[in-house]
Amino acid sequence: MSELLEATLTSIGPLDERAMEAARRHQDDLTKPPGSLGRLEELAVHLAGIRGRDAAPLGPCAMLVCAGDHGVVAQGVSAYPAEVTAQMVANFLGGGAAICVLARLAGARLLVLDAGVAADLPAHPQLLGLKVRRGTADITREPAMTPGEARAAIEAGMAAALRLGDQGVEALVVGDMGIGNTTAASAMVAAVTGAPASAVCGRGTGLDDAGLARKVAAVDAALRRAALGPDPDGLRLLAELGGLEIAAIAGAVLAAAARRMVVLLDGHPATAGALAAALLAPRVADYCIAGHRSAERGHVLALARLGLVPLLDLELRLGEGTGAALALGLVMAAARLPAEMATFSSASVSGPVAPASGDGQAVDLATAG
Amino acid sequence: MSELLEATLTSIGPLDERAMEAARRHQDDLTKPPGSLGRLEELAVHLAGIRGRDAAPLGPCAMLVCAGDHGVVAQGVSAYPAEVTAQMVANFLGGGAAICVLARLAGARLLVLDAGVAADLPAHPQLLGLKVRRGTADITREPAMTPGEARAAIEAGMAAALRLGDQGVEALVVGDMGIGNTTAASAMVAAVTGAPASAVCGRGTGLDDAGLARKVAAVDAALRRAALGPDPDGLRLLAELGGLEIAAIAGAVLAAAARRMVVLLDGHPATAGALAAALLAPRVADYCIAGHRSAERGHVLALARLGLVPLLDLELRLGEGTGAALALGLVMAAARLPAEMATFSSASVSGPVAPASGDGQAVDLATAG
Repeated sequence: MSELLEATLTSIGPLDERAMEAARRHQDDLTKPPGSLGRLEELAVHLAGIRGRDAAPLGPCAMLVCAGDHGVVAQGVSAYPAEVTAQMVANFLGGGAAICVLARLAGARLLVLDAGVAADLPAHPQLLGLKVRRGTADITREPAMTPGEARAAIEAGMAAALRLGDQGVEALVVGDMGIGNTTAASAMVAAVTGAPASAVCGRGTGLDDAGLARKVAAVDAALRRAALGPDPDGLRLLAELGGLEIAAIAGAVLAAAARRMVVLLDGHPATAGALAAALLAPRVADYCIAGHRSAERGHVLALARLGLVPLLDLELRLGEGTGAALALGLVMAAARLPAEMATFSSASVSGPVAPASGDGQAVDLATAG
Repeated sequence: MSELLEATLTSIGPLDERAMEAARRHQDDLTKPPGSLGRLEELAVHLAGIRGRDAAPLGPCAMLVCAGDHGVVAQGVSAYPAEVTAQMVANFLGGGAAICVLARLAGARLLVLDAGVAADLPAHPQLLGLKVRRGTADITREPAMTPGEARAAIEAGMAAALRLGDQGVEALVVGDMGIGNTTAASAMVAAVTGAPASAVCGRGTGLDDAGLARKVAAVDAALRRAALGPDPDGLRLLAELGGLEIAAIAGAVLAAAARRMVVLLDGHPATAGALAAALLAPRVADYCIAGHRSAERGHVLALARLGLVPLLDLELRLGEGTGAALALGLVMAAARLPAEMATFSSASVSGPVAPASGDGQAVDLATAG
């Protein structure tokens, strides 16, 4: 294991319990009935634990889209041809993809990481070219990549997250682009959870019934070939069944957690990357927020394994980071509300009536303390 | 019925089917698999129908918080004393309430309408003082207000929405402030749906079991007293069981729909206002988007009656417009994505492979047309 990876894994600390306790107390002092902001209150406490401080608006946010190609597309598992990966990277850099629009709307920067696109990509200020190889091998026939390549792809993702961290980014949306990558993600989730191929495969970008059957067969074949057994090692999981962009996402998640950045996970491939990261460093899940519940079946299983409950459920299945980007507004709100809301005493708002009285008499917290 | 109300009701037109059809076609030309943006695609089509045009980012947005007091608090139905209504209005105007933070985050203006707060409120540039009376009567004993007062409160809400419309506002978040108003909203929803009081009452701002029992008893008593029968008239429903701020919300929703503004509904009292509006002009529901599913039980029934499926489900129960304000980011995204995303042909991205082939051969829409 390389030094950067090793050092990162050991530097991921626990959530800051003191900051979380302070955030909990602070929530109950804000001018609202206790608990009335629901999951935003839990989220604010979670953010305090990640960041080690309460009641501070989120600083700069970034979207990181990791891209790579997949040899398994030879099995007819995608509705789109493989060259769409490179074409969509060009679309990201040209500003015309959905994630570009959402990044502009959120005021977030967008960085694209080429971890393994099977094409030469022209240089661009928003493109981080750290291609490890030109796409994975066909996982139904051989490992996706060597363990050394998996490590290199992880480190490419780490480098991207660290670069953004150095620029002051405090919250990272991680998304994916890779034709065929929900097949790899499904195989990874099946290997980790023990679920059958039929339970983890969805229609991806729009497979018909025959395509879905080919996808299930490909995942079955890949699982039999890899024969990982229970509790697979994260690096071996990525090398056998993963994708270069999925490994990069795992690395980005690890580095972001080590830097105490907030990680917003997008859909199935991004969450599969976080799943691999959690096999390498279980605490990493504590730094992750699930942006949304994808329409892909395997995604739900991966979220459950990570103990994450998604913020949105809008039947999205686009990837690119779009679901996480849409959830970013909720995360920004959760951070900003306790930073800017008045307290009962500062705003001279009365607290609840005494529970036993029920006669409408006020207990003014401003004077009752 | 007054002229303004009458004229508004008759000027609410149907959704623009041509704009919706154009929006549907446009969605399928954008660089994403068809349907992959899930509910955001439906939302974009809905927005086109409301606004009469496709692919235009939302212009200025506003939050309108309607405030009023409730005589039914004498029955011990709220965890907070009635003076909190006026105190929270001061907090809205001071910028310290949750809705203020969310308005700043969204770049939206905030307007507070006093339709019936039981206190004198000092003038403020963000306060529209159109008080109809100082709180409603206790609905367990007598009608909340006279039909004339209900009409005046509706027209106050209309005036607020029209003022914002005159300022160019294209999307309106409608929220409520009124201690005791989930009791009124519950009674309204029970009267319209026929559901029993126990099925429409929740814990509001934080009632204990005894308080909840008092609330159910109060709703029961109000329903028996009003004896509205099936299919009540909207104006009579508001006068018998409603609230001054709930009537104002009904008016704001009606005027916004007449102006083809997008209406984002917050929780239980705001949706009860929309329910009354829909009794006066059924088409008004077509202009409404449900921001979130409240933790209040009656809210779910009201949404179902209006045929609305909420965008968010975050266990919020604060009111003020907060749930709708959080959903505004999703609505802005839905409007902006088709306006700014590239099309397959403009970005030279390949379309799906031919369904029958399954061999990965590209069909380039840029050349195939």
